Amino acid sequence: MGDLKYEKEITALLVIDPYNDFISEGGKVWDRLKAVAEANNCVPHMVHVLNAARKGSFRVFYALHHRYRPGDYETWKYIAPIQKAAWSHKTFEYGTWGGEIRREFEPQPREIVAQEHWCSCGFANTDLDLQLKKHGIHQLIVIGLIAHTCVEATVRFAAELGYEVTMVKDATASYSDEHMHAALDVSMPNYASAIVTTNEVVHSISSL
Amino acid sequence: MGDLKYEKEITALLVIDPYNDFISEGGKVWDRLKAVAEANNCVPHMVHVLNAARKGSFRVFYALHHRYRPGDYETWKYIAPIQKAAWSHKTFEYGTWGGEIRREFEPQPREIVAQEHWCSCGFANTDLDLQLKKHGIHQLIVIGLIAHTCVEATVRFAAELGYEVTMVKDATASYSDEHMHAALDVSMPNYASAIVTTNEVVHSISSL
Amino acid sequence: MGDLKYEKEITALLVIDPYNDFISEGGKVWDRLKAVAEANNCVPHMVHVLNAARKGSFRVFYALHHRYRPGDYETWKYIAPIQKAAWSHKTFEYGTWGGEIRREFEPQPREIVAQEHWCSCGFANTDLDLQLKKHGIHQLIVIGLIAHTCVEATVRFAAELGYEVTMVKDATASYSDEHMHAALDVSMPNYASAIVTTNEVVHSISSL
Amino acid sequence: MGDLKYEKEITALLVIDPYNDFISEGGKVWDRLKAVAEANNCVPHMVHVLNAARKGSFRVFYALHHRYRPGDYETWKYIAPIQKAAWSHKTFEYGTWGGEIRREFEPQPREIVAQEHWCSCGFANTDLDLQLKKHGIHQLIVIGLIAHTCVEATVRFAAELGYEVTMVKDATASYSDEHMHAALDVSMPNYASAIVTTNEVVHSISSL
Repeated sequence: MGDLKYEKEITALLVIDPYNDFISEGGKVWDRLKAVAEANNCVPHMVHVLNAARKGSFRVFYALHHRYRPGDYETWKYIAPIQKAAWSHKTFEYGTWGGEIRREFEPQPREIVAQEHWCSCGFANTDLDLQLKKHGIHQLIVIGLIAHTCVEATVRFAAELGYEVTMVKDATASYSDEHMHAALDVSMPNYASAIVTTNEVVHSISSL
Repeated sequence: MGDLKYEKEITALLVIDPYNDFISEGGKVWDRLKAVAEANNCVPHMVHVLNAARKGSFRVFYALHHRYRPGDYETWKYIAPIQKAAWSHKTFEYGTWGGEIRREFEPQPREIVAQEHWCSCGFANTDLDLQLKKHGIHQLIVIGLIAHTCVEATVRFAAELGYEVTMVKDATASYSDEHMHAALDVSMPNYASAIVTTNEVVHSISSL
Repeated sequence: MGDLKYEKEITALLVIDPYNDFISEGGKVWDRLKAVAEANNCVPHMVHVLNAARKGSFRVFYALHHRYRPGDYETWKYIAPIQKAAWSHKTFEYGTWGGEIRREFEPQPREIVAQEHWCSCGFANTDLDLQLKKHGIHQLIVIGLIAHTCVEATVRFAAELGYEVTMVKDATASYSDEHMHAALDVSMPNYASAIVTTNEVVHSISSL
Repeated sequence: MGDLKYEKEITALLVIDPYNDFISEGGKVWDRLKAVAEANNCVPHMVHVLNAARKGSFRVFYALHHRYRPGDYETWKYIAPIQKAAWSHKTFEYGTWGGEIRREFEPQPREIVAQEHWCSCGFANTDLDLQLKKHGIHQLIVIGLIAHTCVEATVRFAAELGYEVTMVKDATASYSDEHMHAALDVSMPNYASAIVTTNEVVHSISSL
């Protein structure tokens, strides 16, 4: 599925959770992602796609998970398991290195950082959909972490909201090949109009 | 994960897509679901949970996929793969037997049927969240079809919206054990606070 | 404010609640709207704009209030005053003449009818935003009823969601000049990018 | 309309935009609000309600307008008039005194500050609805600024989302009596289940 055509005016790159805690040596979750991420060159691929998008003057958006702050969850009556985990591990702790975006992915001027989301979906309870509409975007190219949680959730809901999605399958990672398979082979073919390699998508957007 | 406590006033059963096309002999998708559904007694389990919920006077809600009508998709500029498939197969065709709810699951008075959704998530672009709030519901017990598409999408987004979810793992089905595994073992443990059997959930709600 | 330029591909007409109960002699609410609606030629103006949009091949969407059905509200724990009123008056009763669209506004093939909404906003808990995105729409021309409830609610939220709105001020009506003033002069100048007459908007879209 | 009963567990105070730019001498918009705000004792009333809510251990939430930051609007293709105004006036400029919350309304621990919104509605494109659900809230008592823009937008949409709303009519202000009338007398009686004075609401919640 690599034959999607992009119209520059309505296409954006969406970068999901490029936090140090996920994709930098020493990050809280890196050890769980490392095997898959190193095997598929996830981080260099993410950089490659981002640079191609910037060079081609595509709009770039960031969907970021809520960074942990004290007091976030103490008063909640209802909490999902993944939120309990974020609470106990203080993932992406605000004010710490782990809660910073890895250097190569630092948003530049005229790039849009959506409000932080609370669970996995970059659209849920945030301004991501608004920001995409304010910029006239209808097609999304998606890279980032983690394949079977935030990435899958955001790809699924992008389709629910009417966006045409391209997933870059070697610019994401997860805990195991089994997790990658669940996200990329079982779920996403229903929602992403194209599931392509970094080389394929860079080729497509560089020719526009 | 079977130790969730339910408060009757704020708990509802959510029944997803009990259409003939999915769960009745002769339905358009039944042949693809049959092996898993018969192996885990999906339909009898769904009936068992529904009857227990009705007997216990729990609120019952229905999240239903859009029933195909001519003209639905012809004018769309953007369409997801799962919507293309629904278009070409005319799944749940309005006015046909396949687009009717299987007899045992026919909504009764004082049960709430949410507006039909267009992709997989029962909440997206519908009044399901509103109806749950209008009835003061915060906890959802989920049964229905298909595990890795509509059910997973709805469970995921219920968590995004703040609901506490129980998934009944033998009252759902999918195309293969691999699909069931992706939905029930890889994805849902992040979003569902409990993943239980029919016997467990019926026991829990019958004791209230 | 009449200098808005429209791009045909991204512009749609949005027709709000052209029900017999609102705009036909004998309708349940017509007597309260009649004085304003006849003074400003509301219905002929609505027809004029609709015909111009159809002739110009602009997309047409309908945002419709929920039609009353028995059982709608009996189980709700929370209800807004305007919903209580809809319940007690059975406004737009399903299956009755009052709940039908006035003949001149009957949706035609390739026109989109969004799901019915429960309060006043055509976007809230419906698929209107999705349908607009599926058709690539960013600019809305709004006509219909009632100026200070459903129309104002929908114009306000269209702006919240990122749409560029034109309000046609003599193709709407309300209970009194005071109600018209509150909607058209106090509220909408904040949210509608243009507030124009029927003649102005017909001139603009006919020249494209 | 002052006979609403509150259940403490499901009731919250919602404070809208208590920024210095709105309600402090020297704020950018204060001169336009001053006449109405001083006539009805808006700020002392807001403090009175807030203190009563805190004393009664009611949950307190804050719905805040986006604070201006450079780069916010430059890349938008579509912009509403009220957003153009915010851009040109740099209202609530981030990092300045005007963009700070007036001292008496500084959020305390265990009070919830929703994400900033981009237009007028505290719910649109934010996590306010999620946070209310996470705390089990169904009834809202609303105070703050400005009556006919952010307050009306938030009250209207609270009703759309299923919340039961009480508006405190002398703990808000606007540009003129005419604007107050449009918001409080024309619009809100459709959406707010009670429209009461500070004394009435303080009496009600203090007795629980």
